[in-house]
Amino acid sequence: MSKPTITAFDWVPDFARGQVRDLRVRWALEEVGQPYDVLYLPQGCQKQEPHRARQPFGQVPTYEEGDLILFESGAIVLHIAEQHGRLLPGEQAARARAIEWMFAALNSVEPPISDYAFATLFEAGQPWSKPRLPAVEQRIHERFGEVSQRLGDKEWLEDDRFTAGDLMMVSVLRILEDDGFLERYPNLAAYVARGTARPAFQRALADQLAGFTGNPPPGFEEWLKQQQQQGEAA
Amino acid sequence: MSKPTITAFDWVPDFARGQVRDLRVRWALEEVGQPYDVLYLPQGCQKQEPHRARQPFGQVPTYEEGDLILFESGAIVLHIAEQHGRLLPGEQAARARAIEWMFAALNSVEPPISDYAFATLFEAGQPWSKPRLPAVEQRIHERFGEVSQRLGDKEWLEDDRFTAGDLMMVSVLRILEDDGFLERYPNLAAYVARGTARPAFQRALADQLAGFTGNPPPGFEEWLKQQQQQGEAA
Repeated sequence: MSKPTITAFDWVPDFARGQVRDLRVRWALEEVGQPYDVLYLPQGCQKQEPHRARQPFGQVPTYEEGDLILFESGAIVLHIAEQHGRLLPGEQAARARAIEWMFAALNSVEPPISDYAFATLFEAGQPWSKPRLPAVEQRIHERFGEVSQRLGDKEWLEDDRFTAGDLMMVSVLRILEDDGFLERYPNLAAYVARGTARPAFQRALADQLAGFTGNPPPGFEEWLKQQQQQGEAA
Repeated sequence: MSKPTITAFDWVPDFARGQVRDLRVRWALEEVGQPYDVLYLPQGCQKQEPHRARQPFGQVPTYEEGDLILFESGAIVLHIAEQHGRLLPGEQAARARAIEWMFAALNSVEPPISDYAFATLFEAGQPWSKPRLPAVEQRIHERFGEVSQRLGDKEWLEDDRFTAGDLMMVSVLRILEDDGFLERYPNLAAYVARGTARPAFQRALADQLAGFTGNPPPGFEEWLKQQQQQGEAA
């Protein structure tokens, strides 16, 4: 297998550091022991060519390996797991369940979390965000409670083996690690702590943070301040 | 392979008929020619045992085949495709790209569409829904424009072969088929029409619709009317 190249940002605001989705791909690559290169994009370039040709939504990460160009962190993590025969159990039913948790993380748990980011960051200054926030929080708690219930006292979602499903679920749950949501679910909080304590995660996180050597795009600080002020006034 | 059993609802309101996610699984099963049984759940039962043991979020569909119980329509469709060696190209890079489109449909395109359902149906009566709607619509158009751009004049997302990625993308795009969003993107509208014209889709749709033989839960009609009235007054 040729050494892959992923894309990442050379700068993001503080609130996004340690959360940009290339972290999920870096984590998977670290778990399987695959070295990789990083192509860093300045903010704004992700929406233009040549990056749009890699990623139709103008986002990071992408993954290039020889002629293959992939986007969507879920698809990339699954590809890495399959290529290396790691992060997925060999037995067919167990493998299907690990993949099931990847989809569950991305399609059932992450959407209300992304919604929270809209309500508290990207649309914090909009008049609808504050009144709507309790409904968004309730949907997050519903999902967190359900994952907590299913996890029970197991170490990982499918018993004692860490899979790509755990990698993705921990990645999604930890988005709200500093927002107090996990406190009601001690088993989930411990699960996230177990995931993020893994040496592979720690290396991936350190590498993402070390890559932020660029500068904010013009006007960013003003935009952020305006969102926050409008939010406080609302 | 033993005959699988999926779960579906025996009743949903008109706006959800032809949209409940068991349709995606039925479609995949029809494409690969796999007969299946359906266990129909009355509304409300999905949130209780024994269904909660199958599906941690209390939703349909699930998929049972021998000892394997799967949830998440994305994971189920991928499992069916892998089991039958259909709906996914054999060549590794092409296979990875087909899976990438499954994740793209579910994680990048469907969330703003689900948000539209909140704004216009489930939270239509909330005071924040109407002011927020233009922002939601803009996010949908952004994604639709990006998928349209990438599709270009190809028949399917990866050239001339229908894959599980197309199955999922068509399933997601057609949620808004009657809401006027596709009109701006003639190639997307034609792509959705090609997908839904497939005999396997038509059989799956007819079977879902034929399964709605149950009754609404007590109080449903009143709840819906209330949402609509509040929405009109807002």
